[in-house]
Amino acid sequence: MTAQSRDAFEARLRQIGADRYHDKHPFHQQLHSGACTPEQVQAWVINRYYYQCSIPMKDAAFLSRCSDPDLRRAWRRRIEDHDGDPDPENGREGGIRRWLRLAEAVGLDPQYVASCEGVMPATRFAVDAYVRFVREAPFVAAVASSLTELFASGIHRQRIAGLLEHYDFATEETLAYFRRRLNEAPKDVAFGLSYVLDESVTKAQQDEAAAALTFKTDVLWAQLDALYSAYVAPGRIPPGAWKPGDGGARAEV
Amino acid sequence: MTAQSRDAFEARLRQIGADRYHDKHPFHQQLHSGACTPEQVQAWVINRYYYQCSIPMKDAAFLSRCSDPDLRRAWRRRIEDHDGDPDPENGREGGIRRWLRLAEAVGLDPQYVASCEGVMPATRFAVDAYVRFVREAPFVAAVASSLTELFASGIHRQRIAGLLEHYDFATEETLAYFRRRLNEAPKDVAFGLSYVLDESVTKAQQDEAAAALTFKTDVLWAQLDALYSAYVAPGRIPPGAWKPGDGGARAEV
Repeated sequence: MTAQSRDAFEARLRQIGADRYHDKHPFHQQLHSGACTPEQVQAWVINRYYYQCSIPMKDAAFLSRCSDPDLRRAWRRRIEDHDGDPDPENGREGGIRRWLRLAEAVGLDPQYVASCEGVMPATRFAVDAYVRFVREAPFVAAVASSLTELFASGIHRQRIAGLLEHYDFATEETLAYFRRRLNEAPKDVAFGLSYVLDESVTKAQQDEAAAALTFKTDVLWAQLDALYSAYVAPGRIPPGAWKPGDGGARAEV
Repeated sequence: MTAQSRDAFEARLRQIGADRYHDKHPFHQQLHSGACTPEQVQAWVINRYYYQCSIPMKDAAFLSRCSDPDLRRAWRRRIEDHDGDPDPENGREGGIRRWLRLAEAVGLDPQYVASCEGVMPATRFAVDAYVRFVREAPFVAAVASSLTELFASGIHRQRIAGLLEHYDFATEETLAYFRRRLNEAPKDVAFGLSYVLDESVTKAQQDEAAAALTFKTDVLWAQLDALYSAYVAPGRIPPGAWKPGDGGARAEV
């Protein structure tokens, strides 16, 4: 089989997003249109935190396979963007702390959210599969799995606009996580995309990269399916997962 | 079996250094006393580079297992200290680049050294075993394996003094790597030591931590045994490894 041209291969990767990215999931449509109950928003914040706080582990797994110091130096920023600095007063806050401010804004105890106690097993399975994939898959596939960022700025823009319009908790301050990702993600993805395009030379390598990106869209989609099933319809919350009214609400202030 | 007291356990860890740390290896004694030929110094710089440039991969392997953002934020500095920033003119140089300046000072082409082409297989086996250990061993054992840093400031001080006294290539500038580690390593090790002392509660956990530190001293010692065997006595350089006079010397200037 002959390899695709660089342009055709890039178009193929972008089509994966057009077909399968989680901006098309009904949970997101409900969230962005203001149709989520406060409890559904809380469930989303609790479960999505598990993804957020696993991302630096995923990126460290990548670094740990990376013998080229230049590539490590370029990739390391992803960890810094999410984890921030040890002392946020004198350094970067980082995406994880921004997410916990959102948690507080939607009425959750940030410590409860950070404990990951109420996270659904299905969320963990999907997210842990992603970390494992980046640790174990062929190197270029590991990079390719990050390319969902190609599709992220659209959903972040929709989300910021939709949440600001429809929910009282939403302010520029509480949505800082998404606003910030609008700046960070494009830098990351430009680097990742050109790496994948450059290094996927044979048809087999291109197929492997496309499969990795497809896998990643599955990781994102599966999280929303689990959320929908538990907290929207049929609304069957799995054993042990967070229930509205149980722990996690902020004490009244 | 009862666990050791915190003090007795710390003393046991320190005794491992007193018995087995590579400051006692004859290669280091020869190096620090000025008895190494220029070629022996070069062989050391080439092989030790492989260790240096694998350390960030080891630390990233640790981060990738680390679900606590605070611990990740504290540990991440190790990667930054070694890799430095993407643009060293506007950021940190990092230990790897400092090591390449040392390579240049001892008459090697830094690009050759950075290629790792002439590194002995025995060096790779030992160093790769360390990265793998940190990826796979129990979590506290992974931390404990970093505690050879407890013993590092003594050897760095001896080395700086010995090299400055005995070798023309040695200046504060070319030995910046070691001078810098005198500042960096104590911060790292204070954190690692209290973590290991706090988390090793049972006798079995203490034994595991002690075994991890012993393993790490083996990793360091084996590198010097290989160096000695190849470049000192009997002087049998393994197939494919760097030979004095073959590539790697800097073009005359």
